Amino acid sequence: MVVILIKKNYRMPLPFLHDTITALATPQGVGAIAVIRTSGKEAIEITNRIFNGKDLTQQSSHTLHFGEIRNQEAIIDEVLISIFKAPTSFTKENATEISCHGSSFIIQQILQLLIEAGARLAKPGEFTQRAFLNGRFDLAQAEAVADLIAADSRASHEVAINQMRGGFSKQISSLREELIQFAALIELELDFSEEDVEFANREQLKALLERSLQTITHLIQSFSTGKAMKEGIPTVIVGKPNAGKSTLLNALLEEEKAIVSDIEGTTRDSIEDETIIEGVKFRFIDTAGLRDTSDTIEAIGVQRAKEKMEQATLILYLFDVLTTTPDDIALIKKEIKSLDKPFLLIGNKVDQVQTADLPPFEKVNPIHWISAQSSQDVSHLEKVILNTVIDQDLNRNEVVVTNTRHYEALVQVERALQKVKQGIQQPISSDLLALDIREAIRKLGEITGEVTTDDLLGYIFSKFCIGK
Amino acid sequence: MVVILIKKNYRMPLPFLHDTITALATPQGVGAIAVIRTSGKEAIEITNRIFNGKDLTQQSSHTLHFGEIRNQEAIIDEVLISIFKAPTSFTKENATEISCHGSSFIIQQILQLLIEAGARLAKPGEFTQRAFLNGRFDLAQAEAVADLIAADSRASHEVAINQMRGGFSKQISSLREELIQFAALIELELDFSEEDVEFANREQLKALLERSLQTITHLIQSFSTGKAMKEGIPTVIVGKPNAGKSTLLNALLEEEKAIVSDIEGTTRDSIEDETIIEGVKFRFIDTAGLRDTSDTIEAIGVQRAKEKMEQATLILYLFDVLTTTPDDIALIKKEIKSLDKPFLLIGNKVDQVQTADLPPFEKVNPIHWISAQSSQDVSHLEKVILNTVIDQDLNRNEVVVTNTRHYEALVQVERALQKVKQGIQQPISSDLLALDIREAIRKLGEITGEVTTDDLLGYIFSKFCIGK
Repeated sequence: MVVILIKKNYRMPLPFLHDTITALATPQGVGAIAVIRTSGKEAIEITNRIFNGKDLTQQSSHTLHFGEIRNQEAIIDEVLISIFKAPTSFTKENATEISCHGSSFIIQQILQLLIEAGARLAKPGEFTQRAFLNGRFDLAQAEAVADLIAADSRASHEVAINQMRGGFSKQISSLREELIQFAALIELELDFSEEDVEFANREQLKALLERSLQTITHLIQSFSTGKAMKEGIPTVIVGKPNAGKSTLLNALLEEEKAIVSDIEGTTRDSIEDETIIEGVKFRFIDTAGLRDTSDTIEAIGVQRAKEKMEQATLILYLFDVLTTTPDDIALIKKEIKSLDKPFLLIGNKVDQVQTADLPPFEKVNPIHWISAQSSQDVSHLEKVILNTVIDQDLNRNEVVVTNTRHYEALVQVERALQKVKQGIQQPISSDLLALDIREAIRKLGEITGEVTTDDLLGYIFSKFCIGK
Repeated sequence: MVVILIKKNYRMPLPFLHDTITALATPQGVGAIAVIRTSGKEAIEITNRIFNGKDLTQQSSHTLHFGEIRNQEAIIDEVLISIFKAPTSFTKENATEISCHGSSFIIQQILQLLIEAGARLAKPGEFTQRAFLNGRFDLAQAEAVADLIAADSRASHEVAINQMRGGFSKQISSLREELIQFAALIELELDFSEEDVEFANREQLKALLERSLQTITHLIQSFSTGKAMKEGIPTVIVGKPNAGKSTLLNALLEEEKAIVSDIEGTTRDSIEDETIIEGVKFRFIDTAGLRDTSDTIEAIGVQRAKEKMEQATLILYLFDVLTTTPDDIALIKKEIKSLDKPFLLIGNKVDQVQTADLPPFEKVNPIHWISAQSSQDVSHLEKVILNTVIDQDLNRNEVVVTNTRHYEALVQVERALQKVKQGIQQPISSDLLALDIREAIRKLGEITGEVTTDDLLGYIFSKFCIGK
């Protein structure tokens, strides 16, 4: 009898889990305090060796202890030490956190003392990797930790925290388990193949496949939204010189400034600028380059602007109502339409003209009228932008795929399941069916890390920051 | 009877101490974790309001609690909360620290929730200010906290931690107390002035003055070393083009690279470059500008290089042994000597010449021979540099003044005490003596914060970072 070789909680042998790792867990830079995290069997003993205060090895888990760290006679710092005993720490190992003054010299000295006392510097993501390997959470959840840290908008935060808390993993695991049961039955048929019995009811399999495919397809489709939530929706603003592109950009940024201003260090890029509209991040892409090439309406046809429009998810075409005719816009509309992606036509400077004086733009409807200068109707435009790109049907708590690795695995799962579906219809032999089901199961297992390789883990965790 | 109105532990009325403050205590930027600190009477209650887990108000001091922070239904993060009960916290108030994932979005959300729950954002340095006002330490120690955070070399760290632990404060306080006792006796004489008694023994006062002045003068003298330890010793490298200035700078930096390389974010400036030699920071100032002006040895006379040499504590004059004559150097030496500060003459490229072939440089001794290219004798040069600027008699645990505010106060104390000394010698009346002693006492009190004003405190703590 063929046995499907996937143990539910298989973990690879991990000799390196026996040592104790340490790293700075807070960002580099000047701050009131810094936290140095140490994890491993000997974490508490090692921390105790450099600590001048109570005997840390005699203290209970989840307690805090004040004392000094000394390098021989020299006092390095007065610190607070948190004690965590296995398995009630992030890594499920013994762990300590040293909260010291946020000086680069002190941090370096303490790390050096910890290393001399028996720890080694952690590799990027090694704490999270240990948490995964020790069964705290699965691979998709571990990956969400990195996303959570990088999250800078409500939407990206929401999908990351849902994923970290296992929403996505649950869907994948339950799918995988149903497929495993079916695969087992089909494999059983192989053992009795000469007797031509069917343990696996084909109708039930078909129903399962339909259900699974529906879920998988839904997840795959959620990726474009998920990616946009995580990375920001690329939105290009095009238009003739003096149409008011920069003013519009400023108005869009200004609108949200009150919300974001108290977070320092928000990235501002000279070519791209980000803003958050109702919790969803947009990356606005500047097409100032247009100005240099031509001032005719055909300018939008130039290579550079075209490239940017092709990269974008949404195109905003802005025009000056004072100098643009409905015929111009009709031409533009036709040209943009050929790119086959969402676009908005925006008439600017409406505050400088009487509505009655507007030429007959109805034939190129819909046009969104604003005054970027006075911010008139800019907040309404934001809502239109948001509704144009975000799938409003998406339930707030729905699972969304944000990770390219997961997306690619799901596409392969879908492909394998489609083959199974065709196989049942034709029909083909059980052993061929089993092959495709096993492929789908394997790919689902890669997402949650139930099937994994050192290479894959190395790749995933290398993208983490040190200290996580 | 005149009473000297200085209560030992006088603190001003502090209505604002009744509210609860909160701030991010770790640096901005991406990191595994961030810590949000909250302090005040209601700190634990306020934190408890936004926490989904155990009832924090029922927990002991110095314990850690895992749970969730929610904004209504939405989960913001899974966090660890540290509980500190007054007076066993940094501020001596009730306090909490929320350790969350290091995402700017999460930090902003949690701060917002804390504010909605009753806290307010802390001003820069407000936690340390509260620690001071609640009597945890004096003003000089509070100031040392900021220095400790900024410390990036062994020397700057050492003086900051000594100061934070009260070494300096102790000296100042004991000086001040002795003077207060004497002042009291002198003031007493004023009450009996018609009877012409001397309660204050003039010989004892003289001895005390001598002792005090010696200490004060010593502290004042330590300021130049202290300032250099804290900010780096400005060292200018001058010399003709192609003398090897950049190569020497690189060799000096390279020499220490192994030590500093694992601290990211070490400041590198294009005009100035820093390195740490045996724990002491040097700021090497580039004089590349020289190259544009002239290639004669008189080039060092140009305004720009002169300015830099005037700003520097140490001048390194580097010359190429292959192209420079002893007469050139004699001229240079004379010119640099007129600046009246330490300088070193350094002959470069000795590896390209036989010692026997060297022209007779003995007459301009001492010259330090190196090869910057092959790093030959560069580490020896470093020791010479270090010994030239650092007072080697300075005991490692000796108190050093690093703060300009303290330095200025000490200079005024010295002036007042000198006047007292003259007054005793002339002699002058008790009331005039008392005036000067009181001035000295007041200035000493300003250093430790026993005499203080809101303006002074505002000024000192505004220079702190938020969260400290």
